[in-house]
Amino acid sequence: MRYHKIPNEAVRRLPIYLRGLLFLLEQGQQSVSSRNLADFLGVNPSQIRKDFSYFGGFGTPGVGYKTEKVIKQIKKILKLDVVRRTALVGVGNLGLAVLAYPGFGVYGLEITAAFDIDPKKVGKKIKNLTIEDVSNLRTLRRKGIDLAIIAVPPDAAQKMADALVKAGVKGILNFSPCYIEVPKKVKVVSIDIAMYLARLPYYMRAG
Amino acid sequence: MRYHKIPNEAVRRLPIYLRGLLFLLEQGQQSVSSRNLADFLGVNPSQIRKDFSYFGGFGTPGVGYKTEKVIKQIKKILKLDVVRRTALVGVGNLGLAVLAYPGFGVYGLEITAAFDIDPKKVGKKIKNLTIEDVSNLRTLRRKGIDLAIIAVPPDAAQKMADALVKAGVKGILNFSPCYIEVPKKVKVVSIDIAMYLARLPYYMRAG
Repeated sequence: MRYHKIPNEAVRRLPIYLRGLLFLLEQGQQSVSSRNLADFLGVNPSQIRKDFSYFGGFGTPGVGYKTEKVIKQIKKILKLDVVRRTALVGVGNLGLAVLAYPGFGVYGLEITAAFDIDPKKVGKKIKNLTIEDVSNLRTLRRKGIDLAIIAVPPDAAQKMADALVKAGVKGILNFSPCYIEVPKKVKVVSIDIAMYLARLPYYMRAG
Repeated sequence: MRYHKIPNEAVRRLPIYLRGLLFLLEQGQQSVSSRNLADFLGVNPSQIRKDFSYFGGFGTPGVGYKTEKVIKQIKKILKLDVVRRTALVGVGNLGLAVLAYPGFGVYGLEITAAFDIDPKKVGKKIKNLTIEDVSNLRTLRRKGIDLAIIAVPPDAAQKMADALVKAGVKGILNFSPCYIEVPKKVKVVSIDIAMYLARLPYYMRAG
């Protein structure tokens, strides 16, 4: 399979399908059609079929897919079939919320290191993690961590990204409302909270 | 213009373009082409032109757009040309992070009320806001608030959504890693933090 030919938008949607499928399986749906999944997610079934087709398709059209099998296949495509160790940089309110977030496990994601610049926070224990000084970021390679979440103020984000890249990190989830520059081999996904809120008024009728 | 014919995906991308344009204007770019914007955002210029065409286009192809004019037009389409008052439900770590988030202003969004269920939090002041008990959610209509952010634990999310809908809220940004059900007239956008992180490994090479 030539993964590089697959549109980013299809890759973006796979975790959405994955989450939906995990939910439907939990509800007892052993098999699922693209229409079931589409209805549940409120999207177009043909979009789902098209996205699936990039990865060789997942079943016989009309018959439906074995839910568990599709879940396994999507996890493999997304390289989420192994536990992915992740570092958190910035243990302020947002970082604490990330650490408490209950949704990582279903994707095989695990936060196994946390860093902050504040000496008052360094050394503190949260759950099983001891907060480390950001100067320790260079230990990430040794720890087998190549994913990171940046949850620091915007003016510190680029510096932290540089340190992460230097430490061998290849994927960054950026929460700061700013652009960060990284080498081409590193993938950045940004969540600008305000941007998501900004999509809502369009759909809202006055009165 | 028949807005309902416009794909959700195009609407989803408009705030991304808006943020990029605001940044480029701040950098002094008085005019901008779809190629400039595409290069800056790392997307396809033809995608931008297509998305713009749904809204009647924004300029003469090849000549470029007046940055400020396009910003104004996108804000109008997204109904962000007026200040949008927003309620926050849940003032835990995530809620506090949302309150401290510096990125709302550029979109004309303003959090003007905050609610929690915890009596120890109710009455406390954060910035200019006094945290109110969730039973006060019914006052939202009177306060002219029809947008809300849900930042409560997953098991409380649906109950809060129901109360918000009852109070006249028409747009909800949901941070809980769960699905919430609302009437058709209400628009929900969910941010599952883990789902964004789950997109990264796909792009990462081993070693």
